[in-house]
Amino acid sequence: MHQFLLNDFIIEKHIKNALEEDIGYGDITTDFIYSDDDIITAELNTRTNGIACGLYVFKKVFSILSDSVKVDFKVKEGDKTEKGMTLAVVKGSARAVLTGERTALNYVQRMSGIAAETAKYQEAIAPYHAFITDTRKNTPGFRLFEKYAVAVGGGRLHRFNLCDCAMVKDNHIKHAGSITNAVRLLKSSGSHAHKIEVECETFQEVQEALDSCADIIMLDNMPIDEMKKCVDYIAGRAIVEASGNVKLDTVNKIASTGVDIISTSAIVANAPVLDLGLDIK
Amino acid sequence: MHQFLLNDFIIEKHIKNALEEDIGYGDITTDFIYSDDDIITAELNTRTNGIACGLYVFKKVFSILSDSVKVDFKVKEGDKTEKGMTLAVVKGSARAVLTGERTALNYVQRMSGIAAETAKYQEAIAPYHAFITDTRKNTPGFRLFEKYAVAVGGGRLHRFNLCDCAMVKDNHIKHAGSITNAVRLLKSSGSHAHKIEVECETFQEVQEALDSCADIIMLDNMPIDEMKKCVDYIAGRAIVEASGNVKLDTVNKIASTGVDIISTSAIVANAPVLDLGLDIK
Amino acid sequence: MHQFLLNDFIIEKHIKNALEEDIGYGDITTDFIYSDDDIITAELNTRTNGIACGLYVFKKVFSILSDSVKVDFKVKEGDKTEKGMTLAVVKGSARAVLTGERTALNYVQRMSGIAAETAKYQEAIAPYHAFITDTRKNTPGFRLFEKYAVAVGGGRLHRFNLCDCAMVKDNHIKHAGSITNAVRLLKSSGSHAHKIEVECETFQEVQEALDSCADIIMLDNMPIDEMKKCVDYIAGRAIVEASGNVKLDTVNKIASTGVDIISTSAIVANAPVLDLGLDIK
Amino acid sequence: MHQFLLNDFIIEKHIKNALEEDIGYGDITTDFIYSDDDIITAELNTRTNGIACGLYVFKKVFSILSDSVKVDFKVKEGDKTEKGMTLAVVKGSARAVLTGERTALNYVQRMSGIAAETAKYQEAIAPYHAFITDTRKNTPGFRLFEKYAVAVGGGRLHRFNLCDCAMVKDNHIKHAGSITNAVRLLKSSGSHAHKIEVECETFQEVQEALDSCADIIMLDNMPIDEMKKCVDYIAGRAIVEASGNVKLDTVNKIASTGVDIISTSAIVANAPVLDLGLDIK
Amino acid sequence: MHQFLLNDFIIEKHIKNALEEDIGYGDITTDFIYSDDDIITAELNTRTNGIACGLYVFKKVFSILSDSVKVDFKVKEGDKTEKGMTLAVVKGSARAVLTGERTALNYVQRMSGIAAETAKYQEAIAPYHAFITDTRKNTPGFRLFEKYAVAVGGGRLHRFNLCDCAMVKDNHIKHAGSITNAVRLLKSSGSHAHKIEVECETFQEVQEALDSCADIIMLDNMPIDEMKKCVDYIAGRAIVEASGNVKLDTVNKIASTGVDIISTSAIVANAPVLDLGLDIK
Amino acid sequence: MHQFLLNDFIIEKHIKNALEEDIGYGDITTDFIYSDDDIITAELNTRTNGIACGLYVFKKVFSILSDSVKVDFKVKEGDKTEKGMTLAVVKGSARAVLTGERTALNYVQRMSGIAAETAKYQEAIAPYHAFITDTRKNTPGFRLFEKYAVAVGGGRLHRFNLCDCAMVKDNHIKHAGSITNAVRLLKSSGSHAHKIEVECETFQEVQEALDSCADIIMLDNMPIDEMKKCVDYIAGRAIVEASGNVKLDTVNKIASTGVDIISTSAIVANAPVLDLGLDIK
Repeated sequence: MHQFLLNDFIIEKHIKNALEEDIGYGDITTDFIYSDDDIITAELNTRTNGIACGLYVFKKVFSILSDSVKVDFKVKEGDKTEKGMTLAVVKGSARAVLTGERTALNYVQRMSGIAAETAKYQEAIAPYHAFITDTRKNTPGFRLFEKYAVAVGGGRLHRFNLCDCAMVKDNHIKHAGSITNAVRLLKSSGSHAHKIEVECETFQEVQEALDSCADIIMLDNMPIDEMKKCVDYIAGRAIVEASGNVKLDTVNKIASTGVDIISTSAIVANAPVLDLGLDIK
Repeated sequence: MHQFLLNDFIIEKHIKNALEEDIGYGDITTDFIYSDDDIITAELNTRTNGIACGLYVFKKVFSILSDSVKVDFKVKEGDKTEKGMTLAVVKGSARAVLTGERTALNYVQRMSGIAAETAKYQEAIAPYHAFITDTRKNTPGFRLFEKYAVAVGGGRLHRFNLCDCAMVKDNHIKHAGSITNAVRLLKSSGSHAHKIEVECETFQEVQEALDSCADIIMLDNMPIDEMKKCVDYIAGRAIVEASGNVKLDTVNKIASTGVDIISTSAIVANAPVLDLGLDIK
Repeated sequence: MHQFLLNDFIIEKHIKNALEEDIGYGDITTDFIYSDDDIITAELNTRTNGIACGLYVFKKVFSILSDSVKVDFKVKEGDKTEKGMTLAVVKGSARAVLTGERTALNYVQRMSGIAAETAKYQEAIAPYHAFITDTRKNTPGFRLFEKYAVAVGGGRLHRFNLCDCAMVKDNHIKHAGSITNAVRLLKSSGSHAHKIEVECETFQEVQEALDSCADIIMLDNMPIDEMKKCVDYIAGRAIVEASGNVKLDTVNKIASTGVDIISTSAIVANAPVLDLGLDIK
Repeated sequence: MHQFLLNDFIIEKHIKNALEEDIGYGDITTDFIYSDDDIITAELNTRTNGIACGLYVFKKVFSILSDSVKVDFKVKEGDKTEKGMTLAVVKGSARAVLTGERTALNYVQRMSGIAAETAKYQEAIAPYHAFITDTRKNTPGFRLFEKYAVAVGGGRLHRFNLCDCAMVKDNHIKHAGSITNAVRLLKSSGSHAHKIEVECETFQEVQEALDSCADIIMLDNMPIDEMKKCVDYIAGRAIVEASGNVKLDTVNKIASTGVDIISTSAIVANAPVLDLGLDIK
Repeated sequence: MHQFLLNDFIIEKHIKNALEEDIGYGDITTDFIYSDDDIITAELNTRTNGIACGLYVFKKVFSILSDSVKVDFKVKEGDKTEKGMTLAVVKGSARAVLTGERTALNYVQRMSGIAAETAKYQEAIAPYHAFITDTRKNTPGFRLFEKYAVAVGGGRLHRFNLCDCAMVKDNHIKHAGSITNAVRLLKSSGSHAHKIEVECETFQEVQEALDSCADIIMLDNMPIDEMKKCVDYIAGRAIVEASGNVKLDTVNKIASTGVDIISTSAIVANAPVLDLGLDIK
Repeated sequence: MHQFLLNDFIIEKHIKNALEEDIGYGDITTDFIYSDDDIITAELNTRTNGIACGLYVFKKVFSILSDSVKVDFKVKEGDKTEKGMTLAVVKGSARAVLTGERTALNYVQRMSGIAAETAKYQEAIAPYHAFITDTRKNTPGFRLFEKYAVAVGGGRLHRFNLCDCAMVKDNHIKHAGSITNAVRLLKSSGSHAHKIEVECETFQEVQEALDSCADIIMLDNMPIDEMKKCVDYIAGRAIVEASGNVKLDTVNKIASTGVDIISTSAIVANAPVLDLGLDIK
């Protein structure tokens, strides 16, 4: 697993904004107790099992505050972690470490939590060829980090936003008159570089979507039996995505139908943050 | 409950950023299927019980996209909601409604989820005079909305960031030599307009913190018995805050000790998003 | 043709930046000669034939400077225009009109020029089913407006940026070892919502790209004969895009090979700005 | 020719914006095929003759993406270049080079194109003492780079924006009542640090502008004979600028009248981009 | 005196930044005591004599916070004001008025103070034709408002920044070798649209500057006698600016030498803020 | 005195904005006279006595413009300075030094002026235990630097903005019905982490404020006798702040009453800028 999506200059902007949010006019505790020259060493320790995610972001928080802070990682991005492990050793300006601590943890705890939750879902469907993906149900302003964490957790990514893949939903269909009309409109005006996905609730809709040459067919909230029937019917002529009511105890059955993709907001929206702490030595 | 903290021009900036994140170059589905003049009506419906929070933000998303969209609320901010209720009716430009739908829901689902979780905790301690507060364990860039939701849910707010209240933690104490020294440093350099809170892990520390005239004494991860002993000893001479291992099934016992404030990140970090949908009519 | 891609709050930000660039500390000519209450009427007139594009942007420039300016359009976005036509009548604050004049024209002249150039190419291939698309060779910071103008001119849009469609070029192929390897890597890690395009320079590469199930095959700088051979071989199993050496006098022949898409930077990078003027009455 | 106007922190902001525009959520091709440690070497090669311009900007694009990229220039800013020359060798992170390639080229191709076009005009009037200048007909948001390129091409710069030089046009004259009145208003209210230029269409207007002590007199769209008459009349008492219908085949004749400055938007607005490519080795 | 230089969209950005600086997470006093519907009326009253300046900015602060606030002015921009006068009546949302009060006053008090100080200097030289101008010694980030206030106070403006007028200082002269060389360099490379000013400390330097055709000659810290000698020598062939040691009790003598412009940072940097208050009724 | 409050990434953003304000399109004098390689040495010298403040900001201005500039300080932040002292030696790129000179001085002159003025007030009350603090009467957008300078001058800081300390003023009291009601509202809704200050004009109000458990009691514009009476009555049960009509010749008497804090806008709003110059060697 390598460092992708997170371009340095983009996350730098995000972190500076988060630091301004947390610092305001200054850290009035640390600034008056420590002086500029004080050095500190701290360990990033886990309190529960999980997956390490956001290590680069964690380090970047401190480097924005001071050139002096060195972060020495004991694990790699995406590694499984166990309770009590030390993920990183931080050394440098006491002020930078203490002022940045909360912001650095806020990133890495959420990102690691999402990675861990994704991994649970992905493991639950390991016997099948399906992949878990996220949705666009993100925290406003935090999507890049949430999507990245899904990838680190072993999931795949759904469309980034409204402009990289067309998604025909029920209201689009009603307005266009039919799935056929909606897809035709998009094929005649949209970019040849973008896929078209159609949300289908019935087998009949799936047939129509396939006939209209949709690239991806989403089976929305279908019973397992009907899902299976659709997968068999499509037979590889389009990518099949299942969505709706995806939980850790239902996902295996969904995967067993042979769908290619199972999308769920649960891996992001309801992932518990990973319990991590920065222990000053 | 009135609209506070959310100044219009500040949330407008936040929402524009979130919309840019989700729109990118444009909504390539809706833009090609609907025309500028198409009008739509939609209902914001609940799928589970909870608390309405973020209604103003929900409305603002659409008003940024088009002057034409009118939002008619059926509930007030902070109202309890039941599964199947209609919270608002949205009417106006189909493009604006469909393009803004996901972003609007992303705000209100998270905010309502936090308000509901806060309310659960606050109700669990209703017999006592204690209040639940949040912490600084927020999603980077989203703190204002998370704090506001805690307030709507009936909780109280802890410090906003690092500059509005001094918080003396174990490392500050070690570096200063003692609680007494740390507080003295802050009193001699800091602003008279800011409070000083001291994290204490033992009864002895509580005694020292009280002697040094700390404004707030935090009992950090103490057993219930020791907490009670500290509360009795402090006897109103400082605000007493309990923290650590606060869960829905432990919070009542903590409150029974007589503490004033119980702070926990759980009401924000682990609150499930409220299940809401925008149903086009 | 309706107003798409150009979300109001996004172009508002762009225009404000452009106005700051042109105004600096103020319009030191107009501010000292006109007073706040002076009203002016002006006509947006064409000096050459072309296509109207950017009318909404033109109007928005003035509305940012003053609520008082009304713009009455005599043509619709995308209309063909002839030399001497009046496209719009502008009436309102003299200061707003004169201060905004140059910026408003700078947008609409470039956008109309691109639309007109695109239309020429598209007309040149009218007998065939191919469409002209743009590329990513844009003016830094101005891409949204350039892409929109291509669409208004009757062209189609290629990918918006690096994240909405994968494009495998020669260096990617070399690094991965083969087209097959490169596409396999993308299929195993990338999003199912994104297409994969492969740049091919030979018939053999086209065969390999097709076998690896690329969504789009680009015929890069191929002779007409070989292009035709590739189109026939692909036979609708992938979208075929021609690129390289596309000029107004070669494009018809390229289209005659049966390709689906002809992409060229010429319609944007070398489109002459349309000669328009704002004549004060 | 040295590096002027382009302050590093200002162009850094511009480039980051352009990179965000092109990268969005990430380079989904390169990020999945190359790893962080892959190194690449590439050459910036010319496909046609021209003038090198924007080398510093080209380099800056890559340095924003990665500290590891080194750019070794084979020419100097402003050098004439011939087809097939290597302008620079780029070596470093494959990801940074491939992700930044298009943006880097987009800057340097446009800037070099403008420099080359300017040089053609300037060479065409070499026997005379006149200088070519640009106008304010720029691409919105890209003016700094366009103006810089004109200077590198040997042209001179006209006013940067609306606040560094007053320019009295026909509408200002009509509103003030006369050239004399307009100039008097500016002299009595404006800054002594700013020049006043007056657009004149007739010899009579030139006389009045000179009498009112304008610093610069623009001969707007005048026939060559009348231009000459005006230049002789002015006799060095004001700077004389010719404007209107300036083309590569008319500019020499205009210069022959003895004017000091010939301003034209053609060197920017209609300059073809220079054909450059980044060839990976 | 009309509203110039202050373009609405530019000051809106500045004020929003100032409000964020003062509001942070919210007005925790007013938000908890007043509700959204409370209405308030307040008067902007003077406590000392001065000049009204910044009225439009004052109003804009409140309109950013709430559409409901109406400001009714009792004086016009630039009017002399006496102690005890009511400059404006503000009516609308109590929250908007109280939250915006300090920021609104901070703008108008500084701007009015500068206008008043400028007027004092300008009045002190009333018998002569000289004008007072400001310098670039401004508060970082606040220059536009400071320059505008100088103009409202009856002063004239010096160059806005480093790019609208060349200013040759002693170090430039030393590096170029002589005034003649420095001016020649600027004339041969700079824009014909910009003036050149030369700082001179001796009569000999004045002679050289005049011979090199400088547009403006600054007499820097010269004795009155030498100043007069220089003015007589220049005899209208260049604008003459006096600078250095300009105080309210020396300025009249300086003006008596016949100089055109007297520039001083005192009218901005050391102007006392005007004592104004917002009295809630 | 150590470097606090001024986080590097926050002041970097402020300085870049200030440099853009002063540079615009470029330094048209220096850019044409010096070349990139020219090196210069300059001294930051004092022209009057004062206190050194803003040294870090001064240095940062140059480092933003060029990596090459080295600043060697001869004094420490907060040191008393005498007329004729050299505070720093600056060496590096001539262009960076000359282009940044004015902006660097503008920061350090204002900050040093405020520090010096604060020190005068603080020295005037040296025999007493009171401290001088600032207010929120700042220059919009420049507060952080003004507050920091007060601290360097030996003063203490009042609240940063509207969200870190509640301040109950006369209008709040009237609206709530009484001081008691106002404080009760804040205690029942506001954060336990924030103090509550009450502005009192009479002894009766002081009694009520004390009874309602206000943290800070402000004696607003009280006669010295009544102030003394209030201080004696409060007897350490709340922090006592004096405000109103605080001048250098009245402040000692105010301090003699035994108040803890004396707040005044005079140390910021009316502090003369310190006369400093950058002398090129």
